[in-house]
Amino acid sequence: VRIARFTDGSEPGFGVVEGSIEAGTAVIRGITPHPFGPFSFTGVRRGLGDVRLLAPVLPSKVLCVGKNYADHVQEMGGDTPPQRPILFLKPSTSVAGPGDPIILPSDSERVDFEGELAIVIGRLCRDVPVERAFEVVLGYTCANDVTARDQQKADGQWTRAKGHDAFCPLGPWIETDLDPADLPIRTTLDGELRQSSRTGLLLRDVPSLIAYLSSAMTLLPGDVLLTGTPAGVGPMSPGQTVAVTVEGIGTLTNPVTAR
Amino acid sequence: VRIARFTDGSEPGFGVVEGSIEAGTAVIRGITPHPFGPFSFTGVRRGLGDVRLLAPVLPSKVLCVGKNYADHVQEMGGDTPPQRPILFLKPSTSVAGPGDPIILPSDSERVDFEGELAIVIGRLCRDVPVERAFEVVLGYTCANDVTARDQQKADGQWTRAKGHDAFCPLGPWIETDLDPADLPIRTTLDGELRQSSRTGLLLRDVPSLIAYLSSAMTLLPGDVLLTGTPAGVGPMSPGQTVAVTVEGIGTLTNPVTAR
Repeated sequence: VRIARFTDGSEPGFGVVEGSIEAGTAVIRGITPHPFGPFSFTGVRRGLGDVRLLAPVLPSKVLCVGKNYADHVQEMGGDTPPQRPILFLKPSTSVAGPGDPIILPSDSERVDFEGELAIVIGRLCRDVPVERAFEVVLGYTCANDVTARDQQKADGQWTRAKGHDAFCPLGPWIETDLDPADLPIRTTLDGELRQSSRTGLLLRDVPSLIAYLSSAMTLLPGDVLLTGTPAGVGPMSPGQTVAVTVEGIGTLTNPVTAR
Repeated sequence: VRIARFTDGSEPGFGVVEGSIEAGTAVIRGITPHPFGPFSFTGVRRGLGDVRLLAPVLPSKVLCVGKNYADHVQEMGGDTPPQRPILFLKPSTSVAGPGDPIILPSDSERVDFEGELAIVIGRLCRDVPVERAFEVVLGYTCANDVTARDQQKADGQWTRAKGHDAFCPLGPWIETDLDPADLPIRTTLDGELRQSSRTGLLLRDVPSLIAYLSSAMTLLPGDVLLTGTPAGVGPMSPGQTVAVTVEGIGTLTNPVTAR
């Protein structure tokens, strides 16, 4: 099932996306109260082109890992992958939706895209064993872990570099029926292929990330886990468009603007 | 005004603390809907000893600065203070209330207290000029920026070390009528004085922190800013009690337990 958040001009809500995106016949059907438990249909039904999709979830936290693809570790100048996942948080104010502009802050000289597979947590959990990790997953979406590269280097801690408003586009929806083990992932800039990898190359795969992250802190329904970016990261300029595709989910597209 | 969150056994809510703590005559009067705008009294009125105080706010983010007292920079082995504030986030799942146990994780050998002045944001804001910083402040509370020191060193990024559940006690309440310019701040461990400083020694004072942090990201009502800890940090053991006092606010006391 594909779960999205949307507005048709009135109050935002969750909905289920049905039909073919490619054929242009997709519709969204409103659900209530939310997708983290049993839900029912509201009766609202709109053509996908007639609504605005929003970030598919409003997470209490976006918990991320750095350096989780070997080729990205190398391009960042590292020799060997870290012994354990490097954790960092992006604030909820950094979350943006599909189509929302990525706004380049005036105090950075270089802001990079980082296409990633994102895990959306479905239930409160703590100390999840690897073999039960999929039980706490609602589904998967695409993410762009936008990073002010110069601030990342200057600050040491990555919070400012990765925490600006709109630095965490998510979407276009949450795919709940998906095996994340080996999905092709691609990022394009103005249509040109810049990142191309597979989630099978994650140094820590989805179950082991969930086990590790949930051993560090309680995860809540709607929390988003970013799994790391492969090689090919690079800067964006105002006027460009960046798109992250994870096969089996869809494409998250965002324009880039100056502040 | 002192604003707390409390429960008398029924649903948690905000309240105003009135009367003398010292004389034992303090009461809490329930307010609705919340303290971030005009509120009215619910009619609930309880002796302060008859309710359980909770973390005075449930923040969407806890945004913190590191190395903001010169003597703490020195004790951590640094020569000079950082050029700009070092930012990091603690997740909302780390927030605990007065009296709640600080739970030492089994995978850390050393967990330190760090007593701090905390700022509670009163309204949505971005790019706040220094001279208008106080306009966005609801008030101030005490915080303990609990830190797994070994994990902080091992990870590089501080998220795991500072992000465990219950690693951010806040309280006992929010004092709204207070000049934060030069308040005595003290931390005791089992009654023994371990940190003693004044907020006048902050390398970046409250208005300049608000200006800097709000230039990095939007701040929301209820967001909490931790201003940094002075020298004297040290480890806690199960069975001990840690207390952070900021004069003009009160004392935040937490027992320490093993997981």
